[in-house]
Amino acid sequence: MRYMATISYDGSNYMGFQIQHDMPTIELELEKAIKRMLGTDIKITASGRTDKGVHALNQIIHFDLDKKINPDNLKRGINTYLPNDIYIKNVTEVSDDFHARFSAKSKEYRYYININEYDPLTYKYMPFISNLDYELMNEGMKLFVGTHDFKGFASASIDKRKDTIKTIFKANMNIYDDKLEFIFVGTSFLKYQVRRMMGLIIEIGRKKETKEKISEVFEKKDPKISHKVAPSEGLYLYNVYY
Amino acid sequence: MRYMATISYDGSNYMGFQIQHDMPTIELELEKAIKRMLGTDIKITASGRTDKGVHALNQIIHFDLDKKINPDNLKRGINTYLPNDIYIKNVTEVSDDFHARFSAKSKEYRYYININEYDPLTYKYMPFISNLDYELMNEGMKLFVGTHDFKGFASASIDKRKDTIKTIFKANMNIYDDKLEFIFVGTSFLKYQVRRMMGLIIEIGRKKETKEKISEVFEKKDPKISHKVAPSEGLYLYNVYY
Repeated sequence: MRYMATISYDGSNYMGFQIQHDMPTIELELEKAIKRMLGTDIKITASGRTDKGVHALNQIIHFDLDKKINPDNLKRGINTYLPNDIYIKNVTEVSDDFHARFSAKSKEYRYYININEYDPLTYKYMPFISNLDYELMNEGMKLFVGTHDFKGFASASIDKRKDTIKTIFKANMNIYDDKLEFIFVGTSFLKYQVRRMMGLIIEIGRKKETKEKISEVFEKKDPKISHKVAPSEGLYLYNVYY
Repeated sequence: MRYMATISYDGSNYMGFQIQHDMPTIELELEKAIKRMLGTDIKITASGRTDKGVHALNQIIHFDLDKKINPDNLKRGINTYLPNDIYIKNVTEVSDDFHARFSAKSKEYRYYININEYDPLTYKYMPFISNLDYELMNEGMKLFVGTHDFKGFASASIDKRKDTIKTIFKANMNIYDDKLEFIFVGTSFLKYQVRRMMGLIIEIGRKKETKEKISEVFEKKDPKISHKVAPSEGLYLYNVYY
């Protein structure tokens, strides 16, 4: 039996999603909680990793069990053993050909910036950045939409054989009284891609760079071209679409 | 020179405002930061204590310095030495007869309940409680308004000589899509008073108690009458009025 689960988590206290030895990771906590509930080692597969400090509202995982278990009982049981900052929102039985990663058609990431005043109650959930030119940021965001080679926005340590041509369907910016919201929907995203895109958008908002730099990064396809990586705490894996 | 400062903090990691030996408290962190900036021991006075886990958006303190220091420099300097979860929003010079506690005319506390779904990103900021009858809660809230002897809503360890007659000017409940907001404005509040009032309102919302219990607690003036204390993480010292 294959099960799909929707997970939300506060990434603040974790080294990211993927298991790294005994470091605190979301994957390790999920596998530990499933083992404590079912008594057996179960390997989970996620739609993708999230980095250290990055949050998720609807991360998707799948896992296989030998026997049929009521999905609501699975949800309740695993949640009992999870720490307070990781939560299973939903479990459903899916067909064996469903794959959390390979079946994903697109993903949505959101990024939040507190523009009001430093806030000790939200600093782990959106960085405070002031004196930004929203109009320039908004113009920059539009340049991300479409099919591009995003190699220049990837981690410098990216595997050279990796396909870096990706499509972004939506790159919107919404301005609220107290925060900025950035919405990215695309086929898939490379490691650090959203934080590097956001890092450049923030530099454009600060007038340290112009939107022409975005075109330059697309053309040069070199992750080593210096530009900032936005803080992890503002980033949320918001949805995975199948 | 007397200075007034407006402080916000995330109470999650503290044993409350007031210094207790070497335990982590907001007061200790503030005095340590002021000492690191100015090199001397400075005693601060707050509008009142907040309990373990309780947050503040506008806690007010005052302190005296031998010499005049630009308030903006004080703000910047002290913030440099404060942990990320405590922040000085504003410093102003005040006259010597201003007293953070004795000059306060009224205080505003707010309480938040997440009514949507358990959320691992906000559980430290509002407890998740479902299946509440909002109409009953709203009717109960109205009974708090006015001048009453709140002894029955105080901590059981309250000093018997303490004046427990207080006036509440405002006790409102607002219903949002994802949360409930409770606003209490009153002359001053006893230890645990807001959490015990909220504890009873939650029991009324759960239909475990009726609003008549509120009148009973007022009449019997006995803090030992069993009723629940609402979780600290939903409570915010929202404002102090002078």
